[in-house]
Amino acid sequence: MKKHNLIVGQSGGPTAVINSSLYGVISEALSHPDAIGHVYGMVNGIQGLMQGHCCNLGKCSPTELEALTYTPGAYLGSCRCKLPEDLTDPVYPVILQKLEDMEIGYFLYIGGNDSMDTVSKLSRYAAKVNSRICFLGEPKTIDNDLVLTDHTPGFGSAARFVATAVREITTDAEVYDTQSVTIIEVMGRNAGWLTGASVLARRFEKDNPLLIYLPEVPFCTEDFIKRLGDLLKTRKTVILCVSEGIHDSEGRFICEYETSAETDTFGHKMLNGCGKFLEQLVRSRLGVKVRSVELNVIQRCSSGLLSETDRDEAIMAGRFGVNAALEQETGKMIAFERESNFPYRISCSLKDVGQICNKEKKVPLEWIREDCDLAEDFIQYAAPLIRGTVTARMEEGGLPSFVYR
Amino acid sequence: MKKHNLIVGQSGGPTAVINSSLYGVISEALSHPDAIGHVYGMVNGIQGLMQGHCCNLGKCSPTELEALTYTPGAYLGSCRCKLPEDLTDPVYPVILQKLEDMEIGYFLYIGGNDSMDTVSKLSRYAAKVNSRICFLGEPKTIDNDLVLTDHTPGFGSAARFVATAVREITTDAEVYDTQSVTIIEVMGRNAGWLTGASVLARRFEKDNPLLIYLPEVPFCTEDFIKRLGDLLKTRKTVILCVSEGIHDSEGRFICEYETSAETDTFGHKMLNGCGKFLEQLVRSRLGVKVRSVELNVIQRCSSGLLSETDRDEAIMAGRFGVNAALEQETGKMIAFERESNFPYRISCSLKDVGQICNKEKKVPLEWIREDCDLAEDFIQYAAPLIRGTVTARMEEGGLPSFVYR
Repeated sequence: MKKHNLIVGQSGGPTAVINSSLYGVISEALSHPDAIGHVYGMVNGIQGLMQGHCCNLGKCSPTELEALTYTPGAYLGSCRCKLPEDLTDPVYPVILQKLEDMEIGYFLYIGGNDSMDTVSKLSRYAAKVNSRICFLGEPKTIDNDLVLTDHTPGFGSAARFVATAVREITTDAEVYDTQSVTIIEVMGRNAGWLTGASVLARRFEKDNPLLIYLPEVPFCTEDFIKRLGDLLKTRKTVILCVSEGIHDSEGRFICEYETSAETDTFGHKMLNGCGKFLEQLVRSRLGVKVRSVELNVIQRCSSGLLSETDRDEAIMAGRFGVNAALEQETGKMIAFERESNFPYRISCSLKDVGQICNKEKKVPLEWIREDCDLAEDFIQYAAPLIRGTVTARMEEGGLPSFVYR
Repeated sequence: MKKHNLIVGQSGGPTAVINSSLYGVISEALSHPDAIGHVYGMVNGIQGLMQGHCCNLGKCSPTELEALTYTPGAYLGSCRCKLPEDLTDPVYPVILQKLEDMEIGYFLYIGGNDSMDTVSKLSRYAAKVNSRICFLGEPKTIDNDLVLTDHTPGFGSAARFVATAVREITTDAEVYDTQSVTIIEVMGRNAGWLTGASVLARRFEKDNPLLIYLPEVPFCTEDFIKRLGDLLKTRKTVILCVSEGIHDSEGRFICEYETSAETDTFGHKMLNGCGKFLEQLVRSRLGVKVRSVELNVIQRCSSGLLSETDRDEAIMAGRFGVNAALEQETGKMIAFERESNFPYRISCSLKDVGQICNKEKKVPLEWIREDCDLAEDFIQYAAPLIRGTVTARMEEGGLPSFVYR
């Protein structure tokens, strides 16, 4: 049997473990020298591939490979690129020819929603032209919004960062003997998984964060002010977490409420987050000391709070994908099935990538309590995903020693 | 000789190692049962003491004490309280009487500038009334702006967080094949030490951050736009770090430049940082993809990036203070003297607290380069302070196991 080469790419927003998935793919692929020839990487995903930007990953040293498991960003570079809906578009034969020229048999693409769309289209085109190349998707997103999988690599580490940061900010905010409100804005435009993970910060019942707002439920400023006002009758330190994507019942984002600041001195709309808006609202309406904290990109690129569970699962999914490709599976995404919660145990499966792309998995409404809190079901779901510590190799100077292409 | 009791308090903004200083004080004090009776803590600093809020620290278990070395916030609670300038104010005899009632012989106060002012006033009042109580200050501030000491506990850990975050954000920003600018806003109103520490993020010569702006040098928006525009001719990813306190040559803060947003819908002035203003400026003037990231309070309360050097020195200063008190030293602050850089070595000394309070140590102008960068002298000064890793004890759930009063 002729050996084929494997190519792997990364796409969409980076996560803390997208390189662990890559590590899983590379290390597994290199362990099948009988079946797989070269292991190539697309530089900047499908966009780079179209421009002929590839690299040979077989040349990575063991030290470099191991460093992938705690290096944030995307080692291969990423892209945001949507392929044409029309499979008769001339881009498809160009891509296929590139892959044929490189004698690719296995194409693995690590990414989220849009990236699965790429895998779906390429696999459908390949089927149309009777190509033998297998196209598989490796899941990745801090948003945890892919359907047909229990969860996605990247979410656990981001969730651990969020929960830890909320606990640390709570600890910081509690030091004074005066009343204060802290609003923490968490990533997640349409799905509230990551904001929900802030519930894991609690040290005891009725601990902070006292209010958690997800984009799955319409946000009402009057209800918010009332709830907060009630809490301030008895609580000194109030921490509340809001998803960046909270919006009202008409679908208008709360971050767009700021009317007077619609244009800045340059004539541009100010781009403050909802946290900043709510900070002003609270100051104005309740007259309490208040600040807002936007966790920002650090929640997806912090290497110091990787979840060991997340990292291990990313590697496992990477390895599983290579073996599935070797079994000629195509047009599928590697998914996680939760087998048990006590003890926590998952397995990998394959799902039709066409059923996954362009859909969003939101937090089930029955997991969101009416008192702006998360139900026990959510906690049992999320808690196992943030367990375990990963220790990045450090440079002598005290900074993490990442690996770069 | 009659045994006296010791009391310790924390004051001002929390840092990641203010509890390590406390650990040093408590553990050293408890190791002198012959000379020191009870070890008390003021709850919420001098303010709490005046209200009689104290606790007995001798009851802490060894596990609780050890957990202090990685717990952020301020275990005893903090306060912001300035004692009257007039030493004939009736508050002084009240405080002294409280201390006499508790048979205090040694008063240690962990804090920054304002806290040293408290130590100075109390020690001067004590001298006036011939009290035998010793008053000593333990340095603490992420701003590193205390004079007469090489550096202050709290700075090294915050600096390690900033340098690591800048490296991680750089790694994150580099993934796309498109040009982008990221503006990172770092704490420090008047002194640029912490913003300067971002220089330690560099992996190689001419690496990001490419521009670093400290409040010690007047900021000129035109010069900034010109420099950034020049960089964008050759660089794909530009990360720049700005101190929250940058201001123009007339002393006006850059964060106050936003004129159109002077009032929000509630009639309040918007409180955006300078990073957000510069983001809008860059978007408007250079038309490049740009975002701003405010590192915010997490830079002073992150437990995951403690500098081992910083933590050890905080403990050392705590211990040194207790021994100095036992030798009847008063009106002094524990200071660090740098004995050598290669290898890095410091020792503790005592400095007149009256010479320290109400002064600010800024970054020397000769350490700030004209091309918006830091000189080698700064790097040699700051680099040793961020070395070494501290591993916090983790709960089974994956979150750090902090200790609370």
